[in-house]
Amino acid sequence: MSSLEDLPLRPDLVGQKPYGAPQLAVPVQLNVNENTFGIPESVALDIVKELAAEVMSLNRYPDREFVELRSLFAKYLGFNLSSENLWAANGSNEVLTQVFQAFGGPQTLALSFGPTYSMYPNIARLTLTPYRELPREAEFELSPGYVANAISEAKPGLVILCNPNNPTGTPISLEVIRAAYDSFEGILVVDEAYAEFNDGESAISLLPGRPRLLVSRTMSKAFAFAGARVGYLAADGAVVDALRLVRLPYHLSALTQAAARAALGHADRMLENVERIKVQRDRIIERTRDLGLQPYRSSANFVLVAGFNDPEAVFDGLLSAGVIVRNVGIPGTLRITAGTEAETTKLLRELEPLLG
Amino acid sequence: MSSLEDLPLRPDLVGQKPYGAPQLAVPVQLNVNENTFGIPESVALDIVKELAAEVMSLNRYPDREFVELRSLFAKYLGFNLSSENLWAANGSNEVLTQVFQAFGGPQTLALSFGPTYSMYPNIARLTLTPYRELPREAEFELSPGYVANAISEAKPGLVILCNPNNPTGTPISLEVIRAAYDSFEGILVVDEAYAEFNDGESAISLLPGRPRLLVSRTMSKAFAFAGARVGYLAADGAVVDALRLVRLPYHLSALTQAAARAALGHADRMLENVERIKVQRDRIIERTRDLGLQPYRSSANFVLVAGFNDPEAVFDGLLSAGVIVRNVGIPGTLRITAGTEAETTKLLRELEPLLG
Repeated sequence: MSSLEDLPLRPDLVGQKPYGAPQLAVPVQLNVNENTFGIPESVALDIVKELAAEVMSLNRYPDREFVELRSLFAKYLGFNLSSENLWAANGSNEVLTQVFQAFGGPQTLALSFGPTYSMYPNIARLTLTPYRELPREAEFELSPGYVANAISEAKPGLVILCNPNNPTGTPISLEVIRAAYDSFEGILVVDEAYAEFNDGESAISLLPGRPRLLVSRTMSKAFAFAGARVGYLAADGAVVDALRLVRLPYHLSALTQAAARAALGHADRMLENVERIKVQRDRIIERTRDLGLQPYRSSANFVLVAGFNDPEAVFDGLLSAGVIVRNVGIPGTLRITAGTEAETTKLLRELEPLLG
Repeated sequence: MSSLEDLPLRPDLVGQKPYGAPQLAVPVQLNVNENTFGIPESVALDIVKELAAEVMSLNRYPDREFVELRSLFAKYLGFNLSSENLWAANGSNEVLTQVFQAFGGPQTLALSFGPTYSMYPNIARLTLTPYRELPREAEFELSPGYVANAISEAKPGLVILCNPNNPTGTPISLEVIRAAYDSFEGILVVDEAYAEFNDGESAISLLPGRPRLLVSRTMSKAFAFAGARVGYLAADGAVVDALRLVRLPYHLSALTQAAARAALGHADRMLENVERIKVQRDRIIERTRDLGLQPYRSSANFVLVAGFNDPEAVFDGLLSAGVIVRNVGIPGTLRITAGTEAETTKLLRELEPLLG
């Protein structure tokens, strides 16, 4: 085997490391914000049924326009959306990559407010889009005036706001999104991967009259569908036309389309677990505060907890006890996914003796 | 709805049209080089079984490294390959896009020999890679000297050779690939999407000692798996490391991995239909020649037939009769996929009266 240094790699990739949280077999996995409740058995049966119906015709290319799936997404989201407003891809990472491919590029600055989702700079690099991350305000919050000023000064062509924000959990108000939109002429993406856990209103309500506003979502979290890789986006139909120019033909397999259709048919059942997860999230916030730690407010299915003297030691201690959480690199913090009641109990029980 | 002109699209995308063959419901579909035999029922049952086993754990992210699938591809290909030499993505279009992302970019010229697969310039544009297509020799053939000279003069950083070539069907010899490799210091991709229909040897046999040689494949054709979107690649392990830098994390869903694993377990059964398809391909060549047309030689599952005075009229006539073929834009030609015996009979019967 040769080494990477011997190959004519794209110059800006030299020295880069591949993205990725460790994939370890640990009994309690609270590290990548999955829905640990899993898929209810009755829903799983319908998914298998829908998949089985596709298998005999897998020799044919899938519906390139995935029209039925887009209609189901529109119906799920509401707000009078129709299939023309919807798009989907293999995970919201691919949706966002397509957005950067269509609207980014070397001449366009992409702007975000960090700490935020670590894939944004990767996607920017992949699409050769210059990327800048400005700091969030105190407690990782964002206010309309701050965001509007920052955008006016930085003059980006593309702004991406994560709401609620990963890895901090912080929600932003619709006022922030309105102010951001009005402060430039470029594309505003609101990444609502964790929207179902957020009591605040979705930016989808702001779409009418705002053709430069794009709202991305995922089935990986609330829908417990991380393994199926389904992200989607709601926007003006012209945005969907733009994404058609950059998507690879037939990018969404017949199996992916079938599985997503079946899961969407059980949205109500899936959202029951969302309420249970929110209860555990709030329990993590309360209990870690009682333990003398500083959890940030969260509208997602995880909590960023500050106040650890030695987060690496706590991470290792939890791992030894069969619980994996995430060290996202923010000093003194760990990010903890809200799991089932039993998992949360186990986490909190193991955490206490590790606090020196 | 706004119009595309109102949005700040990437400048080089303005005026572009989305890729795509028409997706029409026609009884005999010989237009996109699918395997029209479909998936044998016994194989389909195993695929469903393997898919069903994944559904309950779809709430978890898939194996980011798809190690088991890569091992199965290595075993299928032979040539002493191991999982470290293998990579896969959602269709060979995505594999090739990742190759362009890792080794292309604005400073790297990509070179091919046309007419060839129409996605190459699209993938180049998507990855901001300059792309040049030099003409093939007479009868769409390529010889070692011609290719070596062309590469020496054009000085590309990335060369892509389609073998057998789509849309012409023309195979190239291993001498051409050796000559191409030796004539520059860049990345040489051999796209073997139709390899199983080719009696000539695979470029995989040339991999030892050639770390800049990449051989891409697909399950869409011989494996009758177009709907599942599985492309793969064999190369030096360092190339796989490079692709890890540009792939989106978890790009291959748990369902895709499961379906591909199951299908690979039945490679022998699938390849039986490949032999039947080759018989029909050769029948198309003989019969169209008898009809006074000029079919090019083909080592794929389709035939490019020249000699049509009015290919549009023949296309329309066939379509009216329930048979769809492909007009790839090469004057006087149509491209016809080899289907089942019954489909080929129908095609040839409908074709004859349309020749004026």
